[in-house]
Amino acid sequence: MQAYRTLERRFARLSRLGDALGILGWDKETTMPLGAAESRGETIATLSVMAHELLTASETGALLQQATEEESDGLDRWQSANLREMRRQHAHATAVPGDLVEAASRASTASEIVWRQAREASNFTLLLPRLSEVLETQRAIGVAKGEALGLSPYDALLDQYDPGTTQAFVDPVFGTLRGFLPGLVTEVLERQARRAPPLPMRGPFPVAAQKALGERLMQAAGFDPSRGRLDVSTHPFCGGATQDVRITTRYDESDFSSALMGVLHETGHALYEQGRPASYLDQPVGQARGMTLHESQSLLIEMQACRGEAFLGFLSPLLQDAFGDDPAFARDNLVATYRRVSPGLIRVDADEVTYPAHVLLRYELERAMIGGDLALRDLPTAFNDGLHTLLGVTVPDDRRGCLQDIHWPAGLWGYFPTYTLGAMTAAQLYRAACAAEPALEPGLAEGDFSRLTGWLRTSVHQQASVADTATIVAEATGRPLDAAVYQAHLRQRYLGQ
Amino acid sequence: MQAYRTLERRFARLSRLGDALGILGWDKETTMPLGAAESRGETIATLSVMAHELLTASETGALLQQATEEESDGLDRWQSANLREMRRQHAHATAVPGDLVEAASRASTASEIVWRQAREASNFTLLLPRLSEVLETQRAIGVAKGEALGLSPYDALLDQYDPGTTQAFVDPVFGTLRGFLPGLVTEVLERQARRAPPLPMRGPFPVAAQKALGERLMQAAGFDPSRGRLDVSTHPFCGGATQDVRITTRYDESDFSSALMGVLHETGHALYEQGRPASYLDQPVGQARGMTLHESQSLLIEMQACRGEAFLGFLSPLLQDAFGDDPAFARDNLVATYRRVSPGLIRVDADEVTYPAHVLLRYELERAMIGGDLALRDLPTAFNDGLHTLLGVTVPDDRRGCLQDIHWPAGLWGYFPTYTLGAMTAAQLYRAACAAEPALEPGLAEGDFSRLTGWLRTSVHQQASVADTATIVAEATGRPLDAAVYQAHLRQRYLGQ
Repeated sequence: MQAYRTLERRFARLSRLGDALGILGWDKETTMPLGAAESRGETIATLSVMAHELLTASETGALLQQATEEESDGLDRWQSANLREMRRQHAHATAVPGDLVEAASRASTASEIVWRQAREASNFTLLLPRLSEVLETQRAIGVAKGEALGLSPYDALLDQYDPGTTQAFVDPVFGTLRGFLPGLVTEVLERQARRAPPLPMRGPFPVAAQKALGERLMQAAGFDPSRGRLDVSTHPFCGGATQDVRITTRYDESDFSSALMGVLHETGHALYEQGRPASYLDQPVGQARGMTLHESQSLLIEMQACRGEAFLGFLSPLLQDAFGDDPAFARDNLVATYRRVSPGLIRVDADEVTYPAHVLLRYELERAMIGGDLALRDLPTAFNDGLHTLLGVTVPDDRRGCLQDIHWPAGLWGYFPTYTLGAMTAAQLYRAACAAEPALEPGLAEGDFSRLTGWLRTSVHQQASVADTATIVAEATGRPLDAAVYQAHLRQRYLGQ
Repeated sequence: MQAYRTLERRFARLSRLGDALGILGWDKETTMPLGAAESRGETIATLSVMAHELLTASETGALLQQATEEESDGLDRWQSANLREMRRQHAHATAVPGDLVEAASRASTASEIVWRQAREASNFTLLLPRLSEVLETQRAIGVAKGEALGLSPYDALLDQYDPGTTQAFVDPVFGTLRGFLPGLVTEVLERQARRAPPLPMRGPFPVAAQKALGERLMQAAGFDPSRGRLDVSTHPFCGGATQDVRITTRYDESDFSSALMGVLHETGHALYEQGRPASYLDQPVGQARGMTLHESQSLLIEMQACRGEAFLGFLSPLLQDAFGDDPAFARDNLVATYRRVSPGLIRVDADEVTYPAHVLLRYELERAMIGGDLALRDLPTAFNDGLHTLLGVTVPDDRRGCLQDIHWPAGLWGYFPTYTLGAMTAAQLYRAACAAEPALEPGLAEGDFSRLTGWLRTSVHQQASVADTATIVAEATGRPLDAAVYQAHLRQRYLGQ
């Protein structure tokens, strides 16, 4: 297993480059003075190119072939999986010719810039030529990677964000969701209309108190502050490096919920990163599995645990301590506040019930565009019709329609479905965790997350990339991902059934 | 000049790696959670090794040879100097065999650890075996680099920190200094004894007010906050990256002077880094010349400008604004406070007049140890005798004697002389700047540094590494470095002559 050992060292070096890029990226968003932007961009590009060169070097390919031939001589399960992940990363990196990588990068950079103007002007036609270039290069990447990986072009794009997940897997799950979601939304709205609205929570909510509360809840949830940080950035994220997981938020003194729920969301991501297996931290098999499981971990903490009655009962007196007495902080009012459903235009503002509709639509549209079944010029109409069908809302302009998200201009095709796959996975994992640990919810009512995070650590975090997403979920929950579980979660929470 | 252009790209990549290391190092000292220390160490080591591999690659050597042969075809002065600096960096990096690099690194790592214990126990004998290994490996590095560069071993070590500076250059300058310094110290102390001591400045001095004052003075001195930052670390430093120069300080609420003078000191370093020539920022010729000129820039701001009467007159009302009315903040009291001379045991606590004695001693000792003229076991006696001869103080124990500095255990041999060469250079540059810009000191009296920094930018910062230190100083001041100028500065400031 000499070739395998050599590859371990090579991929450890790639991990170190990734760690350097993680800290440089965090610093760029939180700390860097503005005048350093161009220079920092060059530094990040240089390290990225060096990592790409190392991964695609002919020597790497030769070692992978040699290690694969030698594999019989005694790699254990994790080592075999590590070798498989190395091959996967190498295949993704080598599948696309250099000039296509460059063309795609140029297209998305140009498209992002025009997108900001087009969104401002609410004019899709302005973006059309640039976005066409992005679509063409992304489709070409899908074709190239698909040939190398034995996948369809769209599956190859999906595989970048969620290894092993395919359209054949997603379609039936999303099909079920599409079947019940519009009716469920109607039922929830009807029930909601019969109830008094929750009392509003009135600020100001001082930043220092919000920060202290956020840090307290992060640590209650199991975040290890000796191996991570909480800071401020315009767009919240979870980043940093191995043994140094950094999350960010932004504070609004008139609304503590967005920062607080944001911190809890990012804490879920951070727990996944902090819980990866120590022996494989710097190896491909030790990485988090993909965007679906990552999103499931953030939604497990934010949506499943922290918007449940048990945790909100624990939160209620903490809010009184932090911000003063207010009947709006009573548990039942918090529950009602965090369960308001309101079909709207904007995906990132959507509630738990209507959010999946935004994702279903984008999934169907991007699949059709990559497959050539929807012309880009017909996107606005298809988008507006789709949203109306799913949520009954009318899109008044492109700005609040197909121009609202950066994903497509930025070249992130195949990413959208992971949001809702993550939400469904979160519901299924949470239900399994509660079944395995009957004291889980009574614990949350006292701010004790240990049963939940202990179960997640074993069932998800420590599995890292040893198997694909579907296998990890099925082994953790005893069944494949099932939209009916998600349906049951929504019916229980929003209809009391 | 194709080979030269290829080298430019290769060294630009090295500069980006250096920038990444600069930010990772800054983060390590200011921001990183403790639990990330080991992982960060690995990341820094990996990037350092990658830089070393790139610099010492056989292709780099071949390109350097080819570019040198082609040099006739049209490199201008800066490009020729750039090629010379590339060769110098390559020669330093390739001169030392890999096993010696590793042995030296292991020796100094082990020695630093034992040094902390030995200093605590005030027991040089404890350190002796480990320090012997450091001395042997440093001498071997001096021999190896000396052979490659055509220098004596000690000159080769000096060249690492101050390219082009040799013992033949330092000896007469330091000889003059040694000739006048003990007598000058005596004269200053006699004069000081005849005067009333300054009023003490009594705190507390709130950190927020210290920080605001420090930032105001940094910017007054010309620091560009859009391309840099001020933060807190245990040991103050100037670091960061190209277009992102970051200085640090530490605050003590009972004493504002150490942070304030520290910020001004680091601002001098930062102005040098921010003032390097834009066209060569990522090339060897665009780097700051060496430790002597770097130290001269920090001392120019801190010692020459900010401890002069003019600036202290400007500072006086700012202190009243920041910390409240106190007669101790009167200009004449500030002048008296910042000119107290007191021969002592500890180099880093020494005043401007006695500091050079500490450096003279260390220079003579390390030169003798590298040359084999002083056995390591005789170091404590030689150290104690030397300090007594130079300053009349008696070293009571090794902790406050030859164990006080980390430099020798850490493998920094050849570094000490740059402190005092820097101080002498600062005095000579300041005098030349005042002669060239008669309105310089009247400007400082109003907090206007523009004439000083403008002159420095042209005469020093923009020269970067186009020439060696001695040439830059001689061209800027009209004469070679001259200890008599430093003597005149000290006599004028401390004896009023």
